[in-house]
Amino acid sequence: MKMLINGPDTVVADALRGLADAHPELAVDTEKRVVVRRDAPVAGKVGLVSGGGTGHEPLHSGFVGHGMLDAACPGEVFTSPVPDQMAAATAAVSAGAGVVHIVKNYTGDVLNFKMAAELVEDDGVEVEQVLVDDDVAVTDSLYTAGRRGTGATLFVEKITGALAQEGAPLAQVAAVGRKVNESSRTFGVALTAVTTPAKGSPTFDLPSDELELGIGIHGEPGRERRKMMTAREIAEFSLDAILDDLPPGGPVLALVNGMGGTPLLELYLFNAEVHRILGERGVQVARTLVGNYVTSLDMAGASITLCRADDELVRLWDAPVNTPALRWGM
Amino acid sequence: MKMLINGPDTVVADALRGLADAHPELAVDTEKRVVVRRDAPVAGKVGLVSGGGTGHEPLHSGFVGHGMLDAACPGEVFTSPVPDQMAAATAAVSAGAGVVHIVKNYTGDVLNFKMAAELVEDDGVEVEQVLVDDDVAVTDSLYTAGRRGTGATLFVEKITGALAQEGAPLAQVAAVGRKVNESSRTFGVALTAVTTPAKGSPTFDLPSDELELGIGIHGEPGRERRKMMTAREIAEFSLDAILDDLPPGGPVLALVNGMGGTPLLELYLFNAEVHRILGERGVQVARTLVGNYVTSLDMAGASITLCRADDELVRLWDAPVNTPALRWGM
Repeated sequence: MKMLINGPDTVVADALRGLADAHPELAVDTEKRVVVRRDAPVAGKVGLVSGGGTGHEPLHSGFVGHGMLDAACPGEVFTSPVPDQMAAATAAVSAGAGVVHIVKNYTGDVLNFKMAAELVEDDGVEVEQVLVDDDVAVTDSLYTAGRRGTGATLFVEKITGALAQEGAPLAQVAAVGRKVNESSRTFGVALTAVTTPAKGSPTFDLPSDELELGIGIHGEPGRERRKMMTAREIAEFSLDAILDDLPPGGPVLALVNGMGGTPLLELYLFNAEVHRILGERGVQVARTLVGNYVTSLDMAGASITLCRADDELVRLWDAPVNTPALRWGM
Repeated sequence: MKMLINGPDTVVADALRGLADAHPELAVDTEKRVVVRRDAPVAGKVGLVSGGGTGHEPLHSGFVGHGMLDAACPGEVFTSPVPDQMAAATAAVSAGAGVVHIVKNYTGDVLNFKMAAELVEDDGVEVEQVLVDDDVAVTDSLYTAGRRGTGATLFVEKITGALAQEGAPLAQVAAVGRKVNESSRTFGVALTAVTTPAKGSPTFDLPSDELELGIGIHGEPGRERRKMMTAREIAEFSLDAILDDLPPGGPVLALVNGMGGTPLLELYLFNAEVHRILGERGVQVARTLVGNYVTSLDMAGASITLCRADDELVRLWDAPVNTPALRWGM
């Protein structure tokens, strides 16, 4: 499998250099592997840190900036960052008002962020962890006890980021993050398997006429395989799974997310089916985001995330944001 | 080849519905296939229209909005839109100050936009055409006499869009567009072939250990094939071709563009090599954009576009823009 790289060993460091070159508004430590908004720590503001394995770009480094994350720490490809990295990111953004760790529910990430919190708490930094576990496809998974954290991470990072930017205190920022996670559900499908730089070939076999329903973002198995389906059928299957589990309520935020290898054209087409079905089922869509945001390297496929959003969550979603991958209102 | 579609015949219409669902700020006519900013025509403003075959998303529909295009007309996949479509788009954005057609140099597009201009000129709309032909890879090509129009289209659309938004007259808007094109050069590489919905299989054969240097955005042949190279070697080859031909001058705007199937991680990594080489050669980079902007469906690969930019062009690049795919400053 061909990749635009110099070699599997330098992928993360090389890509961080390229991020720094493109975004002088970010302070990128390519040694420690910490990406921080250049104006951090912002006086009086709750800090927001996330991180996880590399391979899901723009998540998380692409979401660092005004109104979203203060720092991200990328691990090796599909591998948790280490506690020292997380602690360095936390210290870099701590302004005395506490720090929220936004953690996707993978065992390594959860443990390492917990250790990092203990490290910085020794230095007097108060930390709250917000766990993201929105993927309804399977209960336990390859790297996870309980549900996996996937697309809702974007909603959690954007909305907590907006509230923190407004100056809300630690407990309130953490609470809104938990509320967003509890209000969100995701379901994803793969049309092709993902290829990691280290392996150089697809991490699982998916026949050329089949798709996998309910996959994770590291090539973890999903619910089932079927013969290839139309976009409409895939949207129906995915939304059945999501709506079966989504708390009742009013309008939703919708993320129609590409896994990395699917063209934007197909994502917009998929979005049309999502909107059609939600319309038929009486679910009002307040805001829609379509694009490659929570990805799995070169995997073809897509996921749908819905988040029940009251007026306050919609307001925070709309609030100004200035990051490499999400930017509006400023 | 698996795609997230309902069938090859409805791809364009289905995707336009999805675009409309996600972006209520755009008026999308799925019958006529015209995408218009909802506040068009903007009183006193020069209108900007572009268009071309579908399959290069977000180009052009994703660049419709404040500070960029007023309208886009997408054709079938890799097929020019028809003159009636272009004329409808032009009429929809004409506010009496004239309209600029931004046209990538493909024979069908050029002829059809010329016919469209004649149609609307009969109704008293003054039209200027800005031709984009920035691709240094080959002189003539499969669908083109002269150089192909590729990545620089984004620079032309953004910078003319900013100047038009400021209220500049027709001749001046067209002139800055031509200046941007003349100041820009692009070179692209393919790691895999593109698959169109109609064909359903790759449009050319590219062995698993080779890449093609100098490809176009429709699977047109490039300069040569070689055994797979590192990101650094590819960047060097591409920048040699670009810098051999780029007019001398000061700082550049840089676009490190994905062809659709290459993950953002690899694009940032590629950007690091681009910056390293430009630094070694004494070329100062004023602004950098990294991402999938001028694509070729699912093709893996990337292109580099450099545009010599004086202070005025940098200022217009930085000006506020609010479109689905480019948004800053507002």
